[in-house]
Amino acid sequence: MIRVGVIGTGMIGQDHIRRMTTVLAGVRVAAVTDVNAAVAAEVGGRIGATVHPTGEEVVNDPQVDAVLVCSWGPTHEQYVLAAIAAGKPVFCEKPLATTQEACLRIVEAEAAYGSRLVQVGYMRRYDEAYRALKAVVDSGDLGAPLLMHCAHRNASVPSSYEKEMAITDTAVHEIDMVRWMFGAEITAVRVLVPRRSRNGGPLQDPLFMILEMAGGALVDVEISVNIRYGYDIRGEVVGEDGTAALGEPSPVVVRRSGQASTPVPVDWRERFLRAYDIELQEWVDAIAGGGQPTGPSAWDGYAASVVSDAGVEALRSGERVEVALADRPKLYAPEVAA
Amino acid sequence: MIRVGVIGTGMIGQDHIRRMTTVLAGVRVAAVTDVNAAVAAEVGGRIGATVHPTGEEVVNDPQVDAVLVCSWGPTHEQYVLAAIAAGKPVFCEKPLATTQEACLRIVEAEAAYGSRLVQVGYMRRYDEAYRALKAVVDSGDLGAPLLMHCAHRNASVPSSYEKEMAITDTAVHEIDMVRWMFGAEITAVRVLVPRRSRNGGPLQDPLFMILEMAGGALVDVEISVNIRYGYDIRGEVVGEDGTAALGEPSPVVVRRSGQASTPVPVDWRERFLRAYDIELQEWVDAIAGGGQPTGPSAWDGYAASVVSDAGVEALRSGERVEVALADRPKLYAPEVAA
Amino acid sequence: MIRVGVIGTGMIGQDHIRRMTTVLAGVRVAAVTDVNAAVAAEVGGRIGATVHPTGEEVVNDPQVDAVLVCSWGPTHEQYVLAAIAAGKPVFCEKPLATTQEACLRIVEAEAAYGSRLVQVGYMRRYDEAYRALKAVVDSGDLGAPLLMHCAHRNASVPSSYEKEMAITDTAVHEIDMVRWMFGAEITAVRVLVPRRSRNGGPLQDPLFMILEMAGGALVDVEISVNIRYGYDIRGEVVGEDGTAALGEPSPVVVRRSGQASTPVPVDWRERFLRAYDIELQEWVDAIAGGGQPTGPSAWDGYAASVVSDAGVEALRSGERVEVALADRPKLYAPEVAA
Amino acid sequence: MIRVGVIGTGMIGQDHIRRMTTVLAGVRVAAVTDVNAAVAAEVGGRIGATVHPTGEEVVNDPQVDAVLVCSWGPTHEQYVLAAIAAGKPVFCEKPLATTQEACLRIVEAEAAYGSRLVQVGYMRRYDEAYRALKAVVDSGDLGAPLLMHCAHRNASVPSSYEKEMAITDTAVHEIDMVRWMFGAEITAVRVLVPRRSRNGGPLQDPLFMILEMAGGALVDVEISVNIRYGYDIRGEVVGEDGTAALGEPSPVVVRRSGQASTPVPVDWRERFLRAYDIELQEWVDAIAGGGQPTGPSAWDGYAASVVSDAGVEALRSGERVEVALADRPKLYAPEVAA
Repeated sequence: MIRVGVIGTGMIGQDHIRRMTTVLAGVRVAAVTDVNAAVAAEVGGRIGATVHPTGEEVVNDPQVDAVLVCSWGPTHEQYVLAAIAAGKPVFCEKPLATTQEACLRIVEAEAAYGSRLVQVGYMRRYDEAYRALKAVVDSGDLGAPLLMHCAHRNASVPSSYEKEMAITDTAVHEIDMVRWMFGAEITAVRVLVPRRSRNGGPLQDPLFMILEMAGGALVDVEISVNIRYGYDIRGEVVGEDGTAALGEPSPVVVRRSGQASTPVPVDWRERFLRAYDIELQEWVDAIAGGGQPTGPSAWDGYAASVVSDAGVEALRSGERVEVALADRPKLYAPEVAA
Repeated sequence: MIRVGVIGTGMIGQDHIRRMTTVLAGVRVAAVTDVNAAVAAEVGGRIGATVHPTGEEVVNDPQVDAVLVCSWGPTHEQYVLAAIAAGKPVFCEKPLATTQEACLRIVEAEAAYGSRLVQVGYMRRYDEAYRALKAVVDSGDLGAPLLMHCAHRNASVPSSYEKEMAITDTAVHEIDMVRWMFGAEITAVRVLVPRRSRNGGPLQDPLFMILEMAGGALVDVEISVNIRYGYDIRGEVVGEDGTAALGEPSPVVVRRSGQASTPVPVDWRERFLRAYDIELQEWVDAIAGGGQPTGPSAWDGYAASVVSDAGVEALRSGERVEVALADRPKLYAPEVAA
Repeated sequence: MIRVGVIGTGMIGQDHIRRMTTVLAGVRVAAVTDVNAAVAAEVGGRIGATVHPTGEEVVNDPQVDAVLVCSWGPTHEQYVLAAIAAGKPVFCEKPLATTQEACLRIVEAEAAYGSRLVQVGYMRRYDEAYRALKAVVDSGDLGAPLLMHCAHRNASVPSSYEKEMAITDTAVHEIDMVRWMFGAEITAVRVLVPRRSRNGGPLQDPLFMILEMAGGALVDVEISVNIRYGYDIRGEVVGEDGTAALGEPSPVVVRRSGQASTPVPVDWRERFLRAYDIELQEWVDAIAGGGQPTGPSAWDGYAASVVSDAGVEALRSGERVEVALADRPKLYAPEVAA
Repeated sequence: MIRVGVIGTGMIGQDHIRRMTTVLAGVRVAAVTDVNAAVAAEVGGRIGATVHPTGEEVVNDPQVDAVLVCSWGPTHEQYVLAAIAAGKPVFCEKPLATTQEACLRIVEAEAAYGSRLVQVGYMRRYDEAYRALKAVVDSGDLGAPLLMHCAHRNASVPSSYEKEMAITDTAVHEIDMVRWMFGAEITAVRVLVPRRSRNGGPLQDPLFMILEMAGGALVDVEISVNIRYGYDIRGEVVGEDGTAALGEPSPVVVRRSGQASTPVPVDWRERFLRAYDIELQEWVDAIAGGGQPTGPSAWDGYAASVVSDAGVEALRSGERVEVALADRPKLYAPEVAA
C-alpha cells in the first residue's frame, strides 16, 4: 500500500484524492496540505490523513512514500525539488514548472540524483484510443510516419482563459502527445491565425499550429476552444503505406428524427476520465516495489515547456520559431529518440 | 434507340417517363396510354409520344420496341400477356400480377414462348449497397451464408395502407431480395406479432417475419412502417466465418449540438433513386441488341407472389406456413438455384 | 476496507482475486478455499489470505465481511445459502445454482432473511455500451420499446462445449440483459435452427432464439459460437419513434491495403474486462457501509434459470415454450416490473 | 438532343464519348477529331460521327451544337477560343489552358462575347458527398466557416508524374473545390515539405499545402500520391459552432478475420465515376434550351491556374506566396464572392 502525500487540495487535488481513495488499488492518502489551511483540514479530516502546514513537511513526513503535487503552478518547482532532495517519487500535475528554466533545474536535480523520481501529469499517453493508435504506428504497418493531423476542440473556455493559454494550457497536451507518438523531439513551431470565431470574444480562436519533428515529420493541430458542440479530440497519423486515426468513442448509436447519431463528450472529464485513473494506477504500480515511474518524465515536462514557449513566440511573431533544447542527460536517453 | 410504350401514366409511370426522357441513354418513349385518357394525352403531348386508347394498342404499335407496364395492378396480367403474345420485351412494375395464379399464367406463357421477355420491377437488385453485399457473399469470403438479419423501416405510411400490405407491398421487396441474395427459394414463412406501436393506428405495426430458405438458411425481417425517424433499410448476412452488412449511406457527417450525426433518408425515393435509374438503364441495354432481360424474371414475380400469400396466411394464422411452388420451367433454371 | 472470502480459486476465482488485489479500491481478500487445497494454499499464500479447508469456514470466518462464490456450479447453492444463514453479502458467479429449484430455494431463503444479500455475476449490466443503450431506452426518446435485435458471437468454443450450452452458458447473458433492458419478465421462448456451420463440428451452431417479453415486446438473438472473426456482441432496441444500438468499440481506425478497418475484440475478456471491474467495484461500494447490493438479484438468477430451462426445452422440441415463474417475493418487487 | 463535337479522342475523350453515348440522356456525339487521325477515324466510325481533320472544323461543323475539348493541354486555348468565336458552348477538360495568361485571354474573350459559353471540368462540385457538405456549410448551421482540413491521397502515380504535378495536377482539384465551398478567392499559398515517403522515389511526397481564403478562413491540404492503400479524398469544414465532413463511401461493412472493414476506392475513376456523369448531364441540361452553363467557369479555370502557379512558387521557395488575380469581369460576378 503506497502512502501518498498530496500538496494542494483544490479541485484537481481533491479529484486525485477521490481517485486514490475510491477507485485505485494499492494506494492511500496519508498526508495533505494546502495554501488554504481550512480546506486542507477539511479534506484531510474526511479521509483520515495527516494535515501539514507546508508542502515540505508533507514531503518529509516519514509516513509518506510518494508525493502528488497539485498546487498552484508557480509552486511546483519547489515541491518537486524537495521530493527529489528527499529521494521520494513525485507525481506533478502539468506543468512541471512555469518556466523552462525551472523545468531544467528539476531535470538537472533529478539527473544528479541518478534515477527517475519525477512523473508529469500528461494523461493522454494513458488513453485507450491514443495507445491503440501508437500501437499501430509502432507496429510498422503504416511504414514510417510522415504526418499527423490533430484537432483539439473545447465546447467553451472560462472567461479567465487568456490568449496564450491556447498554446500553454491546451496545445501543450498535443505537444507532449506527439513527442511520445513519434518518439522524437519537436524542432520548430508555426502558429497560423484563421478567421476569428464570434464565440471566442476577444480571444484569437481558433489557431492552427504546425510542429516539425526531428526526422522530418510534420504535425498540424487545430485548436478550437469555443466550438460549442462538445469536447472533441482527433488525431490521424499518416504513414508511407496507410493511416491510423483515433476512433470515435461511441457507446451507442441513436436513430431518431432523421439522424443516426452518436453523442460527443461534453468536456475533458468525460473524455479522459479513464485515462486519469490508469495514469495514476500505473504510477502507483510502478513505484510500488521501489521502481521508477514509467510515465512522462521531467525531461518530457521540460521539453513541453520549451516547445510551448516557442509556440507562444510563434503566435506573437507570426514566424516559424525553432526549438532549442538543452543537452539531454543520459538518464532520459531511452525515453524519446531525437 | 429503344422505343418504349408506356401503359399507365400515373405517378410511377410519369416518373419512369421522366427517367427515360431526361436521365437514361439509348431509350425514348414512343407511345403512352392510360385509363384516364386526358392524363395520357397531356403526358404524351408533352414528350411527343403517340397516345393510344388501350394498352393492347400500345403493345401492338409497330413504333414500339418494348413495353413498360405501370398501370393498376389488376390489369398487369393482360398487358404482360399481350406483350408476350406480340413477342416484345415487357418491363412490369411490381407486382407481376395480383394473384399467384395470374403470375403462373404469365410464367407458362413466357415458357411457351421459349425465351425471356418479362422483367419485374424489383429494384433492390440494382442498389449499389445490396450489390456490394451480394458480391461479398458470392465471393465465399464468409463461408456459407447461414442467416440474414433485415429491417425495413418507413417513417410513415398513408392512411390507405392496410394491414396485409406490410407483407404484400412492403416485405415483398425483402422476399425478392433474399431469394436473389441466397440464390435459393423460400420454403416457409412465419410472422410474429410484437407489441403494437402507437404510431400505427389500427395497423399491426411492427411485424417480425422469419423466412426459411432452401438449404436451411434463416432470414428475419423487421417490418416497421411508422417509425417516424426516416426510411431505413438494413441487412446483414451471417456466414460461417464472418458477416457482411449494408453500409450506412452517409455522404456527410455533422458534428453539432453534442452529436456526431449522419442524415437518414426521408423516403424510398431518396434511398433508391439511383437503383431505379440503373434498373431501367440495364433493362434498356439488355434488350437493345435483341437480347433477353437479365433482371427479376416472371418466375421471380411468381415466387414473390406465392411467398407473399404464404406470409399473409402466416400473419392471419400465427402459424408457420410452407411455400408450395409450381415446377419451375427450364427457361428459368439458371436464375435461382433451389 | 471490505474483507472478502473467496470460495473457489480456479480461473475465475483467481481473476477476481487479482482484480480485488490490484485493480479495485476499498477491498481485500481475507480468506480463500478451493476443492483443490494445494491451489488454495498457493493462492492464499501469495496474497496473505487465510486458507480454509471448506467454503462454510470461509463464510463463517469473523475476518470475512462478504463472500465471493466462484466454485463449481453444483456447489453454488450450498455456499450462497450458508452466506445467507450467516447474514453476509455474497456475490455468486453465474449461474446462481444449477437448477431452477435450487435457485428458488435461495430466493426463498433470502426473502425469509428479509433484505438483499445475494448478487449474481451478470456483468453486462455494467458495460458502458449497454448502460448507454439502456439510458436512451429509459429516457423515452424512442417511445415504447417494441423489439430488440441481438447477436452473440464467439470466435470459437472449446471442445467441451455441448449443444445446450448455447442456451445455458451463452444465451443466458442475453436473457438476463433483456430482462434488465426492458424491465420486464420473459414469458415465452422459441429456438429456431438454421443451416449448420461447418466450423461447429457436431454442434447445432448457429441458433436463433426468440424471446417474448411481458408487455409484448419481442427479442431475437443470434447465437453463433464458432464464427472465427472475433467476439462480437450486438444489440439494437427498436422503439416506436426510433432505435438505439450498441456502438462499435473502436479505439482506432486503420486505413491500409484497400480497407478502412477497426479491430474486433478477440474474446469476452477483452470485450467485457471493464464491465467485470465495475461490477465488482460497485458491489464493494454498495455493501461497504452495510448496504444491500444493487446488481442482479437472486430473483434475477432464478428467472434466468427458468428461462434458460425453457430455452433448452424449446431447442429440443422445436416448439414455443412458455415461461412459468414462481410468485415473486416482495423483496424483489421494485427490481423488475413484469 | 444536343449534338456534341469532341476534340481529342484519347483516354478521357473516349470515356466522355462512352458516357454521352451509353449513360446520358439528351445528347449524342456528332463529330470528332484527334491529332491521331487513325484513332479519330476508328472512334468516329464506331459511333457514326463525322470525323474532321482539325478541331476548328469540329467547332464550325453546323451539325455540332456544342464542343467538348479533351485534347492535349497546350491546345485547349485555341479550341476554346474558336468555340467562343463561333458562339458555341464549350466544355473544356481541366486545365482550361496551360498558362494563366492563356486562361485570362479566354476569360477576356468570353467577357467580350457577353455571356457564358465555357465550362471547365472540375467534377468535384458534382460529387454527392461534396454537395452534401456544401449544403451544410451554406445552411449556416455551423456558423461561419473558419477552417477546412483536406486530404488527397492516391495509391500511386505513374512514373511520368513530376514533382510539380502534385500542385498543378492533383491539388488543383482541391483549389477549385475550396473556392466553391467557401464562395471566396484564395489569397495566399504555403507548401510545407514533410519527411519523404520511400514509395515516392524521387518525388517530394507527401506535401502539405495551406491556403488562405479571402475572409480569413484557412485550408490545409495533405497531398499524398503514393500511399498504397487506395484513393481517399477527405474534407472537413470547421465552423464556429460545429463541423461537417465528407462521409465514408461504404456500401458494405465486412466483419472477417478480426476486423470490421469497409473497402476504400481503388482510384479516382471508382470514387468520382458518378460525379463525371452528373457533371456532363447537368452541362447538357443547362445548354439544351440555349441556356448558359452553370458549372465551373472560365474565371474559375483562370483562378485555379493562378493559385496553382502560386503553389508551385511556394513549393520552390518555401515561402508564403500571395495570389494576384486580374480584375474579375462582371460576367462572373455572382459566381464567387471574394
